[in-house]
Amino acid sequence: MKALVTGGAGFIGSHLVDRLLQDGQSVIAFDNFSTGQRRFLENAQNHDQFDLIEGDLLDECQIESAMESVDFVWHLAANADVRFGTDQPRHDLEQNTLVTANVLEAMRKNDVRHIAFSSTGSVYGEASIIPTPEDCPMPIQTSLYGASKLACEGMISAYCEGFQMQAWIFRFVSILGERYTHGHIIDFYEKLRANPKRLHILGNGQQKKSYLYIHDCLDAMFTAVESATGFINILNLGTDEYVEVNDSVELITQHLQLNPKRTYAGGERGWIGDNPFIFLDCRRMRDLGWSPKCSIRDGILATLNWLQTNHWVFETRQ
Amino acid sequence: MKALVTGGAGFIGSHLVDRLLQDGQSVIAFDNFSTGQRRFLENAQNHDQFDLIEGDLLDECQIESAMESVDFVWHLAANADVRFGTDQPRHDLEQNTLVTANVLEAMRKNDVRHIAFSSTGSVYGEASIIPTPEDCPMPIQTSLYGASKLACEGMISAYCEGFQMQAWIFRFVSILGERYTHGHIIDFYEKLRANPKRLHILGNGQQKKSYLYIHDCLDAMFTAVESATGFINILNLGTDEYVEVNDSVELITQHLQLNPKRTYAGGERGWIGDNPFIFLDCRRMRDLGWSPKCSIRDGILATLNWLQTNHWVFETRQ
Repeated sequence: MKALVTGGAGFIGSHLVDRLLQDGQSVIAFDNFSTGQRRFLENAQNHDQFDLIEGDLLDECQIESAMESVDFVWHLAANADVRFGTDQPRHDLEQNTLVTANVLEAMRKNDVRHIAFSSTGSVYGEASIIPTPEDCPMPIQTSLYGASKLACEGMISAYCEGFQMQAWIFRFVSILGERYTHGHIIDFYEKLRANPKRLHILGNGQQKKSYLYIHDCLDAMFTAVESATGFINILNLGTDEYVEVNDSVELITQHLQLNPKRTYAGGERGWIGDNPFIFLDCRRMRDLGWSPKCSIRDGILATLNWLQTNHWVFETRQ
Repeated sequence: MKALVTGGAGFIGSHLVDRLLQDGQSVIAFDNFSTGQRRFLENAQNHDQFDLIEGDLLDECQIESAMESVDFVWHLAANADVRFGTDQPRHDLEQNTLVTANVLEAMRKNDVRHIAFSSTGSVYGEASIIPTPEDCPMPIQTSLYGASKLACEGMISAYCEGFQMQAWIFRFVSILGERYTHGHIIDFYEKLRANPKRLHILGNGQQKKSYLYIHDCLDAMFTAVESATGFINILNLGTDEYVEVNDSVELITQHLQLNPKRTYAGGERGWIGDNPFIFLDCRRMRDLGWSPKCSIRDGILATLNWLQTNHWVFETRQ
């Protein structure tokens, strides 16, 4: 089995590379290192069955030639940050929608028939049903990020229908754990390193979010690919808990033994397109026999511990 | 009020241009004449308040400069044919998704805040609820056409959220009437002109489809823009009837006084991604006070009559 992992030097991608190699598969990581980290592939680089292609998925030729003799594509490359859509309105279109179109075309031309895709709970916008099931009422998009991921889901499904491919589409909550490089924990930690006495919080701090630990996430993805046998398998991936941003802040500041003065930007949403309550119904995934082992609390602490011993990651942030 | 109609030389677009001019508005038609027809703008061309821009929406500069001082965008330009997605897999992405991204960016840069958009019932894939309401369970895309239109809907909604725009998104069934240039009626008529004794039908002929007459469609669009005051207004547009492809064939052959031998390609679907039963729940639109005046039968006959007196249109088909 030869697997191609796009975004293979990223947070989730690099963990996936390690797991696939452990599993005895040949692995190609494809990454442009816009946010991926070479250090995340240090283990993989020592492995005979591993190849790294430094390339840009917007270059159709590069991805077409990388796809040769591949059996399975794990397409994780993306702009993964929902927050800055309105600052750069074409960014999600290019890095998510167009990139995915190129991956699908490269698959079609090389007769590669299996794809797993990292979508997002953001496709639900502000869902009318919470916890939100995969077949909730058609939502209205509230972010360019969510819209671009929904566009990718649509193309993948249409390629499955039109070209006899099989897909596993994962709608993730935010993922936590070792190699975490963007999101609220690193943001808060970075702010507290700069000023331990004050912490500014986007929104009113009462936003409710669900998080999943990276190794639970990988277990789920492997379980799904082994057990979900439909042509198009759409699966929420989260936990049965959620926490308020204020709870996260409490946990982080306690762990760091700090007591900063909190200030709030105010409003229900942290940014344009922020969803004040993300909580997914994960029964489909549970019915495949998977369940998460790590609580949100433990995931946050594992993330903090990793950040505390990997300060180099702050230097590489843009 | 200055309106820009993209795809203004097309079937629906040119009728809309005529109606907007009648309504006293200044109108710019923007068209690349890939499927639009100059003859459809003959009336408009005599009007002082009318301007035609022959341009390509993939050229960001052209649409940006066309958007200057525009108040309202009717974005109808599209690849409007669901059938050939798998022959040219990038076509829907380019002509629908990318074009719409360019229109939205041009609007944002010119501070244009209102857009009406021609989406499609094809975004429902093979809907799990029939008649299908706008908030049906999240569907799985079955065609690249539907996927591209859903991508457009998502971007439009996210722009509304991010940049305080207002949108009317119309999910059309197939539209019939004068200036009809693609779809099953013209296909059947063309085949019967070539050979009146035999008619080959895609699928098994039992596909059930709903159709709407062009002037009912325009009435609905005007009613919605006047009466639906949400920021994002998503509205199905169809009739409370549907017909089988075989019923259409019967009506067409009777009208032409022909009795061809029918042959069938077979299968429930006419082509990859064809939906064997399209029937939309149009209560939202009805609740705004609109109802269609023309039956599907009369719409088909009006279309046939127009085709019979406008044979030139066959010469211009690609």
